[in-house]
Amino acid sequence: MTFGKTLQQANALVVGANRGIGLGFVQQLLQDERFGTVFAACRQPQTAHDLLALQDYSQLVCLPMAATQATSIAAAVTQIQAQVTHLDLVINCVGMLHQTDLQPEKSLRQIKADQLLQYFQINSIPAVLLAKHLQPLFKNSDRSVFANISAKIGSIEDNRLGGWYGYRASKAALNMFLKTIAIEYSRKTPHTTVVALHPGTTATQLSAPFQRHVPPDKLFSVERTVKQLLTIIDGLAEADNGSFFSWDGSRLPW
Amino acid sequence: MTFGKTLQQANALVVGANRGIGLGFVQQLLQDERFGTVFAACRQPQTAHDLLALQDYSQLVCLPMAATQATSIAAAVTQIQAQVTHLDLVINCVGMLHQTDLQPEKSLRQIKADQLLQYFQINSIPAVLLAKHLQPLFKNSDRSVFANISAKIGSIEDNRLGGWYGYRASKAALNMFLKTIAIEYSRKTPHTTVVALHPGTTATQLSAPFQRHVPPDKLFSVERTVKQLLTIIDGLAEADNGSFFSWDGSRLPW
Repeated sequence: MTFGKTLQQANALVVGANRGIGLGFVQQLLQDERFGTVFAACRQPQTAHDLLALQDYSQLVCLPMAATQATSIAAAVTQIQAQVTHLDLVINCVGMLHQTDLQPEKSLRQIKADQLLQYFQINSIPAVLLAKHLQPLFKNSDRSVFANISAKIGSIEDNRLGGWYGYRASKAALNMFLKTIAIEYSRKTPHTTVVALHPGTTATQLSAPFQRHVPPDKLFSVERTVKQLLTIIDGLAEADNGSFFSWDGSRLPW
Repeated sequence: MTFGKTLQQANALVVGANRGIGLGFVQQLLQDERFGTVFAACRQPQTAHDLLALQDYSQLVCLPMAATQATSIAAAVTQIQAQVTHLDLVINCVGMLHQTDLQPEKSLRQIKADQLLQYFQINSIPAVLLAKHLQPLFKNSDRSVFANISAKIGSIEDNRLGGWYGYRASKAALNMFLKTIAIEYSRKTPHTTVVALHPGTTATQLSAPFQRHVPPDKLFSVERTVKQLLTIIDGLAEADNGSFFSWDGSRLPW
């Protein structure tokens, strides 16, 4: 997969761009001369200070987008279409593990139906809504990638520890959505490669409360994670459509 | 797995017992002399005519239970605990593929976030709520099975056709929940075997609109499906905990 090989530069969209891995992707793509416009979408760009700090880059376009809401995605797509005809790389970094009033469940005792639904709403559903609404922008690209941050902990096969019911199931559901999107895209926009990526444990707000037991060499900086995932994305072939990759390029079981 | 081998007879609970495969399980368990009490739970037993028609069986106890609601499950468990100390077989048959105003999505064009959430709510979450609230009843059994109707179409690995986004992802999420429950149960109630079962296409209301392309020998009667699944359940060993079986006893990939 080589971006910007044609006369035109490539265009990228990062969703969940205000912090963590999403912000890291925006930072590195802005320094990558293959990319013409870098769209950075998040719920409230007006308060996304780290993103606003990058506004000296003329190729950066910040967009409001609540990726759980179809109408909000559709509005953002209209804004994108007003500026470019195609997207060549879309990275969906929307994800939630904990919030002020929500912690991953250590055991069945902590299960709450509402919390499980919230995990599906935030971690699983945005990928399908994005796939639906971005399809015209992918269609106009010669070669494009729809990359999604999944997690090895969402591998059913690999689950040996248990716990984290909602997070695990929402990532398994995300993986099923991605495989299903990959199949539909292979018929309608076969030059688009859809993948699930496991970033490894990365030093972000998402993993912050759970880093204690991670060995230092297994806790990646955002910069390192983004570099590793961009290496995978750069190496993708059409045959990789619908695959689940770990940060080191190895394939993960579902 | 042999039920009712001890002096006491075994007790069973079927959830989603008003129709389809759930009703079929109730019918066959009532004729199985290994079982003492057969609890049949559904949202509105008072209007479940096929279930009410079985009330001549003195071992049948019908219970109201909305399996998407923790409070409703907890109330049913209290009723069960007033009558027996343990459950030896629980079969979760709660599932939805279509409703009057809801059809499985043929393509991304038909995706609606609300509909996706509804699939998770009905097809995925009840298994975890049941696992949480039934744990004390499993603990008191010498040997028990928690069987859940999943679907091969919920296998991410096996997905080659695409479509049916919400149904597929909700069954993949169910499978992850079951694997995670199996791990927690293996520590806390190791004599309980948790499994996901693919029933094959069965002539029920659920599959009715989609039976046209199913070859006659692959469309099972409810009676046949229940017999096949009971054969698997009877053959389960503790080592099968956390597995995904097809109707013919073969193992399915996640």
